[in-house]
Amino acid sequence: MTAPPARDRKQRKQDTLDRLEEEIDAWVATADPASGTPYMVPLSFLWDGSALLFATPAAGPTGRNLRSGSTVRLGIGATRDVVLVEGDVEALAPDELPEKTGDAFAEKTGFDPRQLTSGYLYFRVRPLRIQAWREANELAGRELLRDGEWLA
Amino acid sequence: MTAPPARDRKQRKQDTLDRLEEEIDAWVATADPASGTPYMVPLSFLWDGSALLFATPAAGPTGRNLRSGSTVRLGIGATRDVVLVEGDVEALAPDELPEKTGDAFAEKTGFDPRQLTSGYLYFRVRPLRIQAWREANELAGRELLRDGEWLA
Repeated sequence: MTAPPARDRKQRKQDTLDRLEEEIDAWVATADPASGTPYMVPLSFLWDGSALLFATPAAGPTGRNLRSGSTVRLGIGATRDVVLVEGDVEALAPDELPEKTGDAFAEKTGFDPRQLTSGYLYFRVRPLRIQAWREANELAGRELLRDGEWLA
Repeated sequence: MTAPPARDRKQRKQDTLDRLEEEIDAWVATADPASGTPYMVPLSFLWDGSALLFATPAAGPTGRNLRSGSTVRLGIGATRDVVLVEGDVEALAPDELPEKTGDAFAEKTGFDPRQLTSGYLYFRVRPLRIQAWREANELAGRELLRDGEWLA
């Protein structure tokens, strides 16, 4: 199988922004900071132009890990056309979320944790590092955003 | 969007086995046992009927984490048709791997770490727990294998 030519950084950035807009789910990897046990599950998200918003039960593994200070690593897209994100995490109770944001989340993901009584939290992930690649020929130049800033 | 009817356990098991045969890549989540920092990256694998075989640089984040005793969580397939695997991990140097297995790995994944001089290790993951679901209506009954045994 021959890989297509490597994309330049500008194209990768545009493809990455499109993907953040259009993809509904991400693979969300966290870990229990005490035991170091990794956890990963697919969750739906909303991209607001600067951060990804997730919602998950506060008492579930991902919610517990993030509330305990776990960092997060996100995988978006397919394994051969991947966007990987590392970022800051901020937890928000449903009543701390602007109503418009909650509405946009519900519209995109098809579920509205504000309607649920089972203790959901929102988590806002602001990317500090983004990498994107398709095949091995795109491993060079895969870093697109570092320390929260897009590389020129 | 209406989800298709939930599959029964027998169908899910068959779909899961097909997926283990046919998928080339998995999302591999590990963590640094000391710092609790999660890591996740897509890696190619070979399923031999009882375990998944991966290869990754011994000194890279996934290799370091697994050598330090991290457990592993694997995501295979799409976010809306997922197989999640937790398992035991065994590290194998290239010269510890049966030649036929190394050949099968190279044929399926398109890369042969035995030819590389850059310090790859193989990692054999034997599933202890497998879950599979598509949409929310399949969350019930998502556990297919527990303590290494398929549920009846």
